[in-house]
Formats: sequence, C-alpha cells, structure tokens
Amino acid sequence: MALVEVTIVPVGTPSASISAYVADCLTVLEGQGVRYQLTAMGTILEGDLSLLLDLVRRMHERPFAKGAVRVVTTIRIDDRRDHTLSIQGKVAAVEARLKGEPH
Amino acid sequence: MALVEVTIVPVGTPSASISAYVADCLTVLEGQGVRYQLTAMGTILEGDLSLLLDLVRRMHERPFAKGAVRVVTTIRIDDRRDHTLSIQGKVAAVEARLKGEPH
Amino acid sequence: MALVEVTIVPVGTPSASISAYVADCLTVLEGQGVRYQLTAMGTILEGDLSLLLDLVRRMHERPFAKGAVRVVTTIRIDDRRDHTLSIQGKVAAVEARLKGEPH
Amino acid sequence: MALVEVTIVPVGTPSASISAYVADCLTVLEGQGVRYQLTAMGTILEGDLSLLLDLVRRMHERPFAKGAVRVVTTIRIDDRRDHTLSIQGKVAAVEARLKGEPH
Repeated sequence: MALVEVTIVPVGTPSASISAYVADCLTVLEGQGVRYQLTAMGTILEGDLSLLLDLVRRMHERPFAKGAVRVVTTIRIDDRRDHTLSIQGKVAAVEARLKGEPH
Repeated sequence: MALVEVTIVPVGTPSASISAYVADCLTVLEGQGVRYQLTAMGTILEGDLSLLLDLVRRMHERPFAKGAVRVVTTIRIDDRRDHTLSIQGKVAAVEARLKGEPH
Repeated sequence: MALVEVTIVPVGTPSASISAYVADCLTVLEGQGVRYQLTAMGTILEGDLSLLLDLVRRMHERPFAKGAVRVVTTIRIDDRRDHTLSIQGKVAAVEARLKGEPH
Repeated sequence: MALVEVTIVPVGTPSASISAYVADCLTVLEGQGVRYQLTAMGTILEGDLSLLLDLVRRMHERPFAKGAVRVVTTIRIDDRRDHTLSIQGKVAAVEARLKGEPH
C-alpha cells in the first residue's frame, strides 16, 4: 500500500481555468475500488503502487483526448514498507502529535 | 491570493516516521491568520503569496532545530490573478464539473 | 516522446548522504537505449512515456533492495504531442530566446 | 549553501510553447552572482537559501508581466547543513559511486 499524489496541468489551453480537465481526469478513478481524495492542489490515491501508477498513466492521457497538446503531470509517491500508509492514517498521525497524544 | 502546497521531508533521520517533524512544522502556522489544510501528502496554504512563502521558509527551518541535518522541501505555487483562488473554491469547481452543474 | 524527471529520496536512512542509493537507481537505466541526464536534483529521461514510467517504477524499487523502508519519489512528466521534446532541444530553445535568435 | 530547483509553468497561454517565458524568468538571475544551471525540466540554483528564494519569488512574477494570468511554480529545496552542497558536487558524488571510486 502506497500513497500517490498526482497533479495534472494542461499547457496552452484556451483558458486559465483547468477544472474541466481535472474533473475529466477523475472519471478514470470511478469504479476502480481505489480510495482517493481530491484536494486543491492534486488528487491523493491510496492502494497498490503498480495499480495507482497505471491509473495515473490513464489520468495523464485524458487532457489530450479533450484537445490539449501538452500536459505537465507531477506524481509524488510515498511508499513505506514497514508500516501501512493510508490517507487517513497519515493525517491522524500528525494530528495526534499536535495534540500531544501517545503514538 | 495564491495557494501554496508544501511538503517537508527530513533525510537521514533515525526513523522512517516523520510525523513528529511535520507536526512541529505546523506550529509555525498557529496564530498567523492563514487558512491551511493538512493532507496526507503536504500542507496547503491560502493567502498572500509573499506571506505564505515567508511561512514556508520558517517551516523548512524547523526540522533542523529538531536535529535533522538535511531537509528536502517541495513547494508548489498556484497563483491566478484573474480570479481569487481558495482551497475550498478549487475543490468545489471540480466537484461542480463532476456533477454537471453550471459554473 | 516525452521527458520525465525523477527524484528518489529514501527516508530514515542511517546517513544524510544518499548518493549510493541514487547511483544504484541509475543502474536500472544501463543498456535500456534511453537517453538520460543526471542533474543535481534528479534524473531527466527522454523517450516513450510508457517505457520511461516502467523504468522509473523499477528505479523506485531499488532503495528497498538496499535496505530502505520508506522511499519518497517525485516524477514530473512533460509530454507534448504537437512537437518532439528532447533534453537537448528544450534547453536549446530557451538559450536561443536568450540570445535573441529567431525560432 | 543550498540547492533549489525551480520550474515555472504559465497556464492558459496562447501557445503550448513556453520557452519565451522561461527565458524571460532567467533574466532575473543575470548579474546576481548566483551559480545556476538550466536543464530541460527547470533551473537549478546554488547559494544562500534566503537569497535563492528571493530570486525564485521574482522569477515567478515574470510571466505575469508578459501577460500570463496564472502561473504554477514548483520549487524543490535540498538543504544540507553538515556538508556543503553544490550543483557540481552532487553530480560528482553519484558519478564517483557509479565508478566504484572511494568517497
């Protein structure tokens, strides 16, 4: 189980608004059984790394299908093998530290 | 008003767990009047860009104070001048597209 | 043809020096017929995107084989379909602009 | 002494080619006494971290002066305090490992 954050930016689009492209990329994740969270700066996915990278590869392809000719995609992988990472668990670990709770 | 995402990773720490460092970085944001969101892959800040970069500069310094000797920090700025960006607004814009709502 | 930049950071290693891990990741690229450039901040690869992502996936795996339990990998894809991108061509395009040459 | 990599991407530009924007950003670095390297995926700067971040802040502003209304800028800091980092030194350290040289 790894976490992957992906941010997809089409370049040279008619408008500076890219929310339509982002929404279209997210349709790739529907029905895939992968937990994800849309944030203001990207989409965070949780699951098997090879599966996640395959989904990200397909997300990256979407803006071209909508007419973009250039896409800059940033992927950040956080992969920990001594411990199971999850979207909720990572945030909870930091919040517990902030509250001074034992961990 | 811009959005900034910051991810701070100390390198060469005794443990692969870095939540204590992340929590300590977040204390920089307390009482600054800046809206922010902790995610599983970083912290997203919303506000005046120069102020945000000053805060990020101070967050980056924190792990050294806790004993780290190397810190890799990634900062992503999304700065739009024809429109006010906000953490909530950006997510809402994509969600409205997904629901097929007019925007 | 796309460009991919990859930066691999093992977390919780005994030392803050990670050059041995980076060198080991680069061995994945030997004999693959892919042009690449090692920089101070990552490795830039040029070629077919699916091939590059497969290589990056294998590079990401290497630090675990050397004992790391957590690896944070950042991948940035620049994919342009109206024009062939190359490591040399992108730098040359900017340098030509700086010299005021016609393009 | 730290290393900073900066990548500046204007969004919603008339063309998918952004080399003119990148060249313009680089003019900020002229005569600043800061060593830097243009790569196919960004610009790597070497020097005092506060100075570098100030320069990056000014580079980020340039595309707006050229008419862009949205700019996505990615900054990666590698800051090591037990050892002096340099553009040349980091690459040399990895290359020495690849050649099996003592370090």
